[in-house]
Amino acid sequence: MLEKIDLGVTIDKETYRQEKERLTVRLGELQRTLHDMGIPVLILFEGWDAAGKGTLINELLMPMDPRSFRVHNFKKQESEDEIFRPFLWRYWTKTPEKGQIAIFNRSYYSDLVYRKSIDALNMQGLMKQANEFEQALSDDGMIIFKFFVHISKKEQKRRFNKLLGNDATAWRVTPRDKKENKHYDKLYEKVNRGLELTDNDCAPWVIIEGEQKDYALIKVFSVLEKRLEKAIETVNKAPAIELKPLIHEGDMPFQSKILDGIVLDQVISEEEYQRQIKEAQKKIRLLQFELYRRRIPLIVGFEGWDAGGKGGCIKRLTRNLDPRGYTVYPTASPSDLERKHHYLWRFWRDIPKNGHLGVWDRTWYGRVMVEPIEGFCTQEEFDRSYREINEFEKQLSDWGAIVIKFWLQIDQDEQLRRFTGREENPDKEWKITDEDWRNRDKWEVYKIAVDEMLLKTSTVNAPWIIVEAQNKYYARIKVLNETIAAIEKRLND
Amino acid sequence: MLEKIDLGVTIDKETYRQEKERLTVRLGELQRTLHDMGIPVLILFEGWDAAGKGTLINELLMPMDPRSFRVHNFKKQESEDEIFRPFLWRYWTKTPEKGQIAIFNRSYYSDLVYRKSIDALNMQGLMKQANEFEQALSDDGMIIFKFFVHISKKEQKRRFNKLLGNDATAWRVTPRDKKENKHYDKLYEKVNRGLELTDNDCAPWVIIEGEQKDYALIKVFSVLEKRLEKAIETVNKAPAIELKPLIHEGDMPFQSKILDGIVLDQVISEEEYQRQIKEAQKKIRLLQFELYRRRIPLIVGFEGWDAGGKGGCIKRLTRNLDPRGYTVYPTASPSDLERKHHYLWRFWRDIPKNGHLGVWDRTWYGRVMVEPIEGFCTQEEFDRSYREINEFEKQLSDWGAIVIKFWLQIDQDEQLRRFTGREENPDKEWKITDEDWRNRDKWEVYKIAVDEMLLKTSTVNAPWIIVEAQNKYYARIKVLNETIAAIEKRLND
Repeated sequence: MLEKIDLGVTIDKETYRQEKERLTVRLGELQRTLHDMGIPVLILFEGWDAAGKGTLINELLMPMDPRSFRVHNFKKQESEDEIFRPFLWRYWTKTPEKGQIAIFNRSYYSDLVYRKSIDALNMQGLMKQANEFEQALSDDGMIIFKFFVHISKKEQKRRFNKLLGNDATAWRVTPRDKKENKHYDKLYEKVNRGLELTDNDCAPWVIIEGEQKDYALIKVFSVLEKRLEKAIETVNKAPAIELKPLIHEGDMPFQSKILDGIVLDQVISEEEYQRQIKEAQKKIRLLQFELYRRRIPLIVGFEGWDAGGKGGCIKRLTRNLDPRGYTVYPTASPSDLERKHHYLWRFWRDIPKNGHLGVWDRTWYGRVMVEPIEGFCTQEEFDRSYREINEFEKQLSDWGAIVIKFWLQIDQDEQLRRFTGREENPDKEWKITDEDWRNRDKWEVYKIAVDEMLLKTSTVNAPWIIVEAQNKYYARIKVLNETIAAIEKRLND
Repeated sequence: MLEKIDLGVTIDKETYRQEKERLTVRLGELQRTLHDMGIPVLILFEGWDAAGKGTLINELLMPMDPRSFRVHNFKKQESEDEIFRPFLWRYWTKTPEKGQIAIFNRSYYSDLVYRKSIDALNMQGLMKQANEFEQALSDDGMIIFKFFVHISKKEQKRRFNKLLGNDATAWRVTPRDKKENKHYDKLYEKVNRGLELTDNDCAPWVIIEGEQKDYALIKVFSVLEKRLEKAIETVNKAPAIELKPLIHEGDMPFQSKILDGIVLDQVISEEEYQRQIKEAQKKIRLLQFELYRRRIPLIVGFEGWDAGGKGGCIKRLTRNLDPRGYTVYPTASPSDLERKHHYLWRFWRDIPKNGHLGVWDRTWYGRVMVEPIEGFCTQEEFDRSYREINEFEKQLSDWGAIVIKFWLQIDQDEQLRRFTGREENPDKEWKITDEDWRNRDKWEVYKIAVDEMLLKTSTVNAPWIIVEAQNKYYARIKVLNETIAAIEKRLND
């Protein structure tokens, strides 16, 4: 891409002055409109060191209402917290909420270009993740700009020398910077290749000729103006969508019946349970330490019918673990803030460090169960969820995580027994709510959603494990044993 | 404190079994009551390595609803992110919200006891901060438990040896652990002294005899039971408080009149402004780099009448800065989540790293202006706010920050001119709301609040700087020059 760029372009003082004045006012208006419409915007600045990204960002902030934007600076070197997390973690967690603008000063793109020990295949894989990230956000309604501010080797050197010539700024040019200027041509190849790999439809690169600062600024502002105007028009013209339930009884007549095929009569005696649980808990504690030593993360998700015994299984799983190494995340309905982000945002936020164990009591699978059933998402959102979830789990797995998902299966009679039991026990009464009864009435609809979910999202690297949970002892032992098996499999690989 | 402890205490199996069963059920009930009443609880575990903190925490989690608690593990070594922040930052940001339980596995207390390079005076100062932290949370309604799990040198050695005897656990005993056991007696002195310095009324230490694990567990559970019961009773018996405006015209008849004494007729010509602003912006950019190099944080707060020109001043202050080094935080009314925490929580959360600049467009001073005027806080909350705010700023200053607060002063006529001007300008109309007009009607009441605030919270280390803002040019230049002066003063110290 870069080889086609003419770095000699300029703009005259008068045009600059006029356009800047006009565009400053206009961008302020557009930002307020976007805010009122709840449209999130991500503006990403990349480019050579000393290309002028900082100045462009500051000028861009001038017309903005400070309540509506946030600048995130990403160093080429990840921090301690970031280095222990998946590649995109530090970016996912900083995506803007609806109506807000996030400005990324450098990004995943620099991450890769400046990473020394990365081969072409790996780079391609991670760039693909970046594309998926942008696709997911864009599908969710985010407007994404990617600016690459380009200057020549000569110009970069000139700017470095200028900084070096002043005592107060000389220290800013690090040995690394100098080295980068020296190896500009080699980096150029890498940069160019990176741009190609990440130039996608939803977030195309805009190359900014950065040698004349006036030109660079007016180009950035003009590109923002045109695309934001278009985005606002598109949203305004889009027909209003009425949210309604998306799954009904009788949908998908020849659907595979995974749940119906589960044999529920496995039982374990209390005595046998007591013996086995102690042993398994002891074992899993040792395995936890081993995972920590080897820096392998473990992600365990629990789903299942209400009163299926998720909480009980989680407590037995974690009881003997070192609390410094695990966290249990209960997933309730999203908060206001969570609702203003992509639905995967809150799960990304909680991804543990590698070597740690994250357990979810209910998970991101609400997206393909309660949301379409209750009509909390649109058909389009629902349709792309399986892919998005599989990509999410694949990224976790590529990062090195062991990913396991348990489905706790009971039948309707057993659920009724447990609901009634809870209502009759003053210590457990709090566990049962009207909503549980309402969900129970939708059993058949849930079955359709769950069968489809188990089918589409059970992958080699993140399999669903069905737990016959009619007998609590059996279920707990199975959860522990399957977890142990998954860990041991990885450790022996 | 520790020397009075008899580590030989035990409990028999049968009492243990019975009490554990009873207390487990009871703590579950209490947790749900606390949740429903919106009472936050902080449970802090300290103690020797291998004293059994992890096991106690896990057992404590068993009866709890996972949606209601969160465990935070604090390493003796702070992370990169934490080391660049004030001492209590990592704890403030993890305080529980209303109705939630936070469990701290180690805390500020370990921070100090295990810190090598700390003299007695410094330790005393930081322990004082810890006490103030607990006082602020406790005043805000939080129940705080501090357990110190105690074992003898001999017992610690025995436990280390047991771990060392097993290949799977041997690595967990680090050279540092061994060294700590060797120097147990010396550490003991430090620990004992630390316990004394932080044993306060609102959060007294409870020493847990940790040699027999059964005893330790029942003691922890029983202490929780008793104090939680008492806390619930106290809250239930407290009379309902009706929130109402706390400041009225005519209050404080002999109040100092700081605002009335401000001479507002300072003016700067546009030409002079253009010349000076460029120069000041250039200078402040260089100073920003110098602060970064020396790792000095700069905290700047802006308050003032509506339409006083805060936004304009902030934009001129930051325009030329490196965006990697500063963040502007606009303070709106608190979100749901923020409302569930101590009012200083959200400001603690945003404290920048050292070497960075944080600018607040409106600040924590809302607590002593809009809140008492509109009746958003109780009289007791209001009364302790000046002290809490001064302590907060003192902690920032002790950390090394330059703290400046600007009050932008205009008169009522000028405000009216600006309001009207905004309403008539389509580009600025969005800046003016009904609320602005409502606040304007309360000018005299605000004057009382502001005069008191300026008097009580202008401190040597965090002074209020009054900015005569009738003329915008004058105001902007003064803000930049005062900021430059404050930075230069520090750099020359």
